[in-house]
Amino acid sequence: MIDLRSDTVTKPTKEMRLAAFEAEVGDDVYGEDPTVLKLEEEAARVLGKEKALFVTSGTQGNQIAVLTHTRPGNEIILEENSHIFYYESGAVAALAGVQTRTLPGIKGAMDPDDVENAIRDEDQHFPETGLICLENTHNRAGGAIVSPENMEAIHAVARKHSIPLHVDGARLFNASAAAGKDVKEFTRHCDTVQICLSKGLGAPVGSIIAGDSSFIQRARKWRKRLGGGLRQAGILAAPGLVALTNMRRRLSEDHKKAAILKEALETCEGISIMNDVDTNIVVADVKERGNTSAEFVEILRDKGILIGGFGPYAVRFVTHYDVSMEQVEEAAEILRSL
Amino acid sequence: MIDLRSDTVTKPTKEMRLAAFEAEVGDDVYGEDPTVLKLEEEAARVLGKEKALFVTSGTQGNQIAVLTHTRPGNEIILEENSHIFYYESGAVAALAGVQTRTLPGIKGAMDPDDVENAIRDEDQHFPETGLICLENTHNRAGGAIVSPENMEAIHAVARKHSIPLHVDGARLFNASAAAGKDVKEFTRHCDTVQICLSKGLGAPVGSIIAGDSSFIQRARKWRKRLGGGLRQAGILAAPGLVALTNMRRRLSEDHKKAAILKEALETCEGISIMNDVDTNIVVADVKERGNTSAEFVEILRDKGILIGGFGPYAVRFVTHYDVSMEQVEEAAEILRSL
Amino acid sequence: MIDLRSDTVTKPTKEMRLAAFEAEVGDDVYGEDPTVLKLEEEAARVLGKEKALFVTSGTQGNQIAVLTHTRPGNEIILEENSHIFYYESGAVAALAGVQTRTLPGIKGAMDPDDVENAIRDEDQHFPETGLICLENTHNRAGGAIVSPENMEAIHAVARKHSIPLHVDGARLFNASAAAGKDVKEFTRHCDTVQICLSKGLGAPVGSIIAGDSSFIQRARKWRKRLGGGLRQAGILAAPGLVALTNMRRRLSEDHKKAAILKEALETCEGISIMNDVDTNIVVADVKERGNTSAEFVEILRDKGILIGGFGPYAVRFVTHYDVSMEQVEEAAEILRSL
Amino acid sequence: MIDLRSDTVTKPTKEMRLAAFEAEVGDDVYGEDPTVLKLEEEAARVLGKEKALFVTSGTQGNQIAVLTHTRPGNEIILEENSHIFYYESGAVAALAGVQTRTLPGIKGAMDPDDVENAIRDEDQHFPETGLICLENTHNRAGGAIVSPENMEAIHAVARKHSIPLHVDGARLFNASAAAGKDVKEFTRHCDTVQICLSKGLGAPVGSIIAGDSSFIQRARKWRKRLGGGLRQAGILAAPGLVALTNMRRRLSEDHKKAAILKEALETCEGISIMNDVDTNIVVADVKERGNTSAEFVEILRDKGILIGGFGPYAVRFVTHYDVSMEQVEEAAEILRSL
Repeated sequence: MIDLRSDTVTKPTKEMRLAAFEAEVGDDVYGEDPTVLKLEEEAARVLGKEKALFVTSGTQGNQIAVLTHTRPGNEIILEENSHIFYYESGAVAALAGVQTRTLPGIKGAMDPDDVENAIRDEDQHFPETGLICLENTHNRAGGAIVSPENMEAIHAVARKHSIPLHVDGARLFNASAAAGKDVKEFTRHCDTVQICLSKGLGAPVGSIIAGDSSFIQRARKWRKRLGGGLRQAGILAAPGLVALTNMRRRLSEDHKKAAILKEALETCEGISIMNDVDTNIVVADVKERGNTSAEFVEILRDKGILIGGFGPYAVRFVTHYDVSMEQVEEAAEILRSL
Repeated sequence: MIDLRSDTVTKPTKEMRLAAFEAEVGDDVYGEDPTVLKLEEEAARVLGKEKALFVTSGTQGNQIAVLTHTRPGNEIILEENSHIFYYESGAVAALAGVQTRTLPGIKGAMDPDDVENAIRDEDQHFPETGLICLENTHNRAGGAIVSPENMEAIHAVARKHSIPLHVDGARLFNASAAAGKDVKEFTRHCDTVQICLSKGLGAPVGSIIAGDSSFIQRARKWRKRLGGGLRQAGILAAPGLVALTNMRRRLSEDHKKAAILKEALETCEGISIMNDVDTNIVVADVKERGNTSAEFVEILRDKGILIGGFGPYAVRFVTHYDVSMEQVEEAAEILRSL
Repeated sequence: MIDLRSDTVTKPTKEMRLAAFEAEVGDDVYGEDPTVLKLEEEAARVLGKEKALFVTSGTQGNQIAVLTHTRPGNEIILEENSHIFYYESGAVAALAGVQTRTLPGIKGAMDPDDVENAIRDEDQHFPETGLICLENTHNRAGGAIVSPENMEAIHAVARKHSIPLHVDGARLFNASAAAGKDVKEFTRHCDTVQICLSKGLGAPVGSIIAGDSSFIQRARKWRKRLGGGLRQAGILAAPGLVALTNMRRRLSEDHKKAAILKEALETCEGISIMNDVDTNIVVADVKERGNTSAEFVEILRDKGILIGGFGPYAVRFVTHYDVSMEQVEEAAEILRSL
Repeated sequence: MIDLRSDTVTKPTKEMRLAAFEAEVGDDVYGEDPTVLKLEEEAARVLGKEKALFVTSGTQGNQIAVLTHTRPGNEIILEENSHIFYYESGAVAALAGVQTRTLPGIKGAMDPDDVENAIRDEDQHFPETGLICLENTHNRAGGAIVSPENMEAIHAVARKHSIPLHVDGARLFNASAAAGKDVKEFTRHCDTVQICLSKGLGAPVGSIIAGDSSFIQRARKWRKRLGGGLRQAGILAAPGLVALTNMRRRLSEDHKKAAILKEALETCEGISIMNDVDTNIVVADVKERGNTSAEFVEILRDKGILIGGFGPYAVRFVTHYDVSMEQVEEAAEILRSL
């Protein structure tokens, strides 16, 4: 099967497994796991932030960021299709007690004026706006890149109103690779950022949140409360370091693969591409073809391709390390023959 | 001054004060205040529900409803300008831990299809949709009436998915009076409802939530947690009973007064009416006049009229019992002379 | 019936009803109710604090204090039989997300060393100690007075560790009257305090929280979230002012009444007094008499006396304004005849 | 250095590392990681429960259990020195909104009568008792075993009142090994249980919660909200399986090591053993020796032994797989020579 459901399905590489096998470890609750410390240091350096913290998932990283930045009764501003709002089980309300103020985005990017207009005045009827969140690349917008210019403009609004800005950068390295810009060109326009070591980077488990020292210190306690304080976490940090160091460089290949799929899909009658395919995600509408997304997923499964539904008539193809160029070509061939 | 800021400014009538003076009272935490019991019984009867509970404000009534219907990690669907979302300080997230899924409305009414599409599937990434909330009349839509037909359609969606439906009916009696329909024509299309005894009905303090016995029993405990369990509450219930019994009938007068103000405003250059003026609220845009809302509020204050800002260029006039027909005529005269 | 169940059953006096009838009122959400403002000013003055806020109940006052002082994940230290822990439906955890660290008290007073030992060190495994709460008089300790010396010592511990100290002073004026000390002799040893206008002071509804300006400003928003922001609240504040001004002076009478009941109970075979009867509460153990508390409550009810159970074998007598000296003598006679 | 601070410092064995290296993995969020599935199935079998769920830590397992069993405003009953209350950063209040009702234990075991007395009656002033938690072995009671008889008696109370019973069994296999009883002799007396794969079992990361199908299904969503939904978690589950399968059998060795340390400590002047040393933990009081715990920790560090402070004058020695019998003999020699 050619598995194009998500880049989360990538399995650890041999190098990662070896790194785990040989990892120098210690009790990270005591701050004694040298591999975790090394990963956190390296991640902070790459992301251009003072400190970084290893967490077990992107969701955990985002939740810890919200818990650390806000207090109950705050409102957070975020894009209406953002992962934090759409895919994190309502956790920001359940755990942090914050109200979600969602704004429509264009290709995942919110309008800075909309953001400013959504910031609440001081009034006892209003929640205080406690945080602004961006997502880059934007998953439900089909892996769209939010430009550094947009981030900068929103960051300016945030700073003007003394509101922190957090970036859900689960796939930020895809943005960096596709835009041909160092990741710091993005992260300089936020206070805190979360990046995933799994997904395109291929690590089996783990994400990073980064920010200033005070943020990370307080985040560490919220991580403990969520049960994310691990013992010999080096066993995960070691493949994470491989992911962070070696795998970033190859994300462009995934983008090429996505472009190939896109071209193939464009030849299919009744299928229209819904996104710009900035990175490694292709979203296609199959309604004109007379299929629901569930039906189309089934059709491709029968031909050896796994993809995911993305609404009633949309489907999503995600390229990644574990689908080789040959497999992508094969998939493209199948698509053209539909 | 002619105070058109809100119907919340109404002062208790002589009859209400007398009722408070003479009220038979007891300790309502022990369930021994006969006047509270009478008010709750009467309110349940009027609203066509099994039981009712006296609460200290519309916000408290709505919050108790959300706390009783949901659990943390649920998502609630509500109109994007609804009072619960917009004006309750983020309390639904802070207290109940529920995520707000806001939908755009037309004149305050959500599209039943939009509501159904917003209901979440069973998936570990998704919050469970735990409640649907309507608001009638809809404050920020300018006192717009949500029709029983719209309520019925949304209630059908709610029932199909086994999701409770709560109505923030702070001004539901205005809808009833303006539509010429018994309030039960509205309340039959929901599981629980909150109505305010203050606002147009003129009581000094208090609201009611109504629903079935099991709901009210659980609601009572949440009221206690919020500090809404009062002692000799009859002192408030007595004027509340006057409000519920006598004052409902006169709401149509407030609607006439609003129509007069509307007509006067339509003669003003640079002012456009933004709502249909279904009930006792007129919202006007003053941008073309070259004023911000703050400036226009100031201009009218200088002429003896108090109104409220309603966004950067919009203002709101609300008619009520304490502004007499003469004062409304006077205000209309002033407006025409602008 | 002679109702000795609680001082919460007191009904508003004629003077209070008249004050409510004549009260000058306004919309307190806009800060325009002159009677509420007057009550808050007077309460702040009497309690020796910068500002005060009217709330609808003692529970609401305590909850707002905890919400304002703390954040989720904090721990609060309080006596194991305190009202906040025992009788507020778990609201501090449900609303404020704080963990309760309960300490045993002697006659309601915690040992300052115990308090200091219970303060948590900085460690990611530990909640931060965010608040210390006292209760004075202490309800479940039978209306026991916590001495200013004990309060001062605990306040010293609190300040040493930069932790705020809140006093649940629902019956603090009883302590003041019985100790013959101005209430400020108590309130100077805390940061914030809640006092009830109902109970011994006889107002129908309402409590006060007092503290510095910043606290009260933030408390106001939490009051709004809990639904405690009222409209023409002057109707409650007016009797509250009567309670605060005139009724404090007569609390000593309630203490004399309690002493009479105590003497009578001491003559009863099989009944032993469990508390020192510092103020207006007598707690008696009826086990030796061969009765459960439920049985004994029934026995007295048949003789025209209402009291409350206070555990399986203990009962509570509470004296107050609505039980006259004559009625107390009558009750004492009945008790002696058992 | 001989590290006796905690059994959490154990490093993964060669066999565990190899298992991780070779682990068959998949995306566990999709339920496709065969190694995780195998671990969960085996854990359920060993623990005698319908289903099990892999979580990243004992704290996470306990928190998920509390979140799944309760709702905000509930009260949970637990021992006053239990890990959930003492060492989990107040998370049960912060995340689940439940109030902690702590009871004193004897050697970690609560009295079933105390538990029954602490269950709240139905009353609007009271939180509902939503959960009872036990800890076995009990960490702060020095690794004390809570007997199956005590568990059975408390479980009977729990069932009588329809309240679920959760066991924090982070070190339950130590109890099982020391008592010579199958772990199911303990787990049959509870509804849900959490066990740690790290600590004495030596896995680098991970714990298990087990219960019935419905519990585990709902727990899975809370795990997602806390960010504990992992991708290729087989990399952790593989060493976890080794821990669960092979390492349980050797826990008795750790208990022998602890007995050796205990004997050595008993020869030391000014040192008294504070616990029964049921399992792998020795707690000693060094006050008579004229040392604070911090000083004594320092003294032993200088001699090559790492231990932990356990209060102002108490210290804790924990034996585990990574301290060999030779090292324990060496440590005992050092202790005897003090």
